[in-house]
Amino acid sequence: MSEHRSGPVRNEAARQAILEAAASLFEEHGYDRLTMEGIAARAHTGKQTIYRWWRSKGDLVADCLLEGLILPDQLIPPSTGDVRADLAVWLERIFGLLQDSRGEGLLRSLVAAAAGNADVGRRLRNSLWANSSLIERLRAAAETGELPADLPLPEVSEALLGAVILRALGREAADPEAVDRLLTVVLGVR
Amino acid sequence: MSEHRSGPVRNEAARQAILEAAASLFEEHGYDRLTMEGIAARAHTGKQTIYRWWRSKGDLVADCLLEGLILPDQLIPPSTGDVRADLAVWLERIFGLLQDSRGEGLLRSLVAAAAGNADVGRRLRNSLWANSSLIERLRAAAETGELPADLPLPEVSEALLGAVILRALGREAADPEAVDRLLTVVLGVR
Repeated sequence: MSEHRSGPVRNEAARQAILEAAASLFEEHGYDRLTMEGIAARAHTGKQTIYRWWRSKGDLVADCLLEGLILPDQLIPPSTGDVRADLAVWLERIFGLLQDSRGEGLLRSLVAAAAGNADVGRRLRNSLWANSSLIERLRAAAETGELPADLPLPEVSEALLGAVILRALGREAADPEAVDRLLTVVLGVR
Repeated sequence: MSEHRSGPVRNEAARQAILEAAASLFEEHGYDRLTMEGIAARAHTGKQTIYRWWRSKGDLVADCLLEGLILPDQLIPPSTGDVRADLAVWLERIFGLLQDSRGEGLLRSLVAAAAGNADVGRRLRNSLWANSSLIERLRAAAETGELPADLPLPEVSEALLGAVILRALGREAADPEAVDRLLTVVLGVR
């Protein structure tokens, strides 16, 4: 490579250290008790370095989530061969996260960050269309014939995730019956 | 009534004047140029009075929208007897609003207000479940047999509005084909 490397490489290492510090502090203390000072201390960097890349705590946590550093296991749908049951488990897990104070602040902060920052919003959206674990699970179901081959998967994903966001904004729990009704609507499998 | 009336009545008049001032200034100048000072001047009140009821411009505009003072006509689905065509018109109108700078800031500010304020979030959600014009349009279609009688309408509404919010957060336009795919998913009518 002809480009000068030490700068970008060092930057990327610092950026990664900040993301990992934020993710580990989030796991330990939850969103509400996360501070830029605490993240800077854990990452052995200055607050100014954090603000070079992220405008707010919400933007930074959004990146942790989008890069799979926070809650990665809970956000991947299971894959047992029964897509409707798998998505029910996945939705109940996500709605369960919204019930605990850690997860609740998390999703709302992601939405607030996306509302205030076009770049976060676009990446949130791109993560849905292109490479999300939800789309992968849906694609596998369409390939095995569990879902109609002509079902437009990006819109299925959009409708499911949109409903999750609305529930999070409305601070309302979803019981298993509500999850079942949502899947009836979105998968068209009754 | 035995309660002392002048206080609540005067309060309600002031509250209404503020909502109407905010709505008319929004129509004239758009969301981004709306200020608490301008609203107070138009409503012949003080800024402190506004802050007694609303924490932020976003919260106030959210109330204008939820009370039907902003964009009421665009937000009501047409009712021609063809529910799929009606919802396509309605969605294209909403996505069109998201393309113009006035409407774009509006929906995102509503979402940000709901993310930051549990009360706004709950009312946003309640307006979907109980008395929204979208639910009414869906209910009419279920009654005439245009939609399956067992289709759970609150979840249809949730999926549609959730998809709209995700598109708004992603700053992405929806072409007529995307609207059509979304309706295929959510109405199950192909």
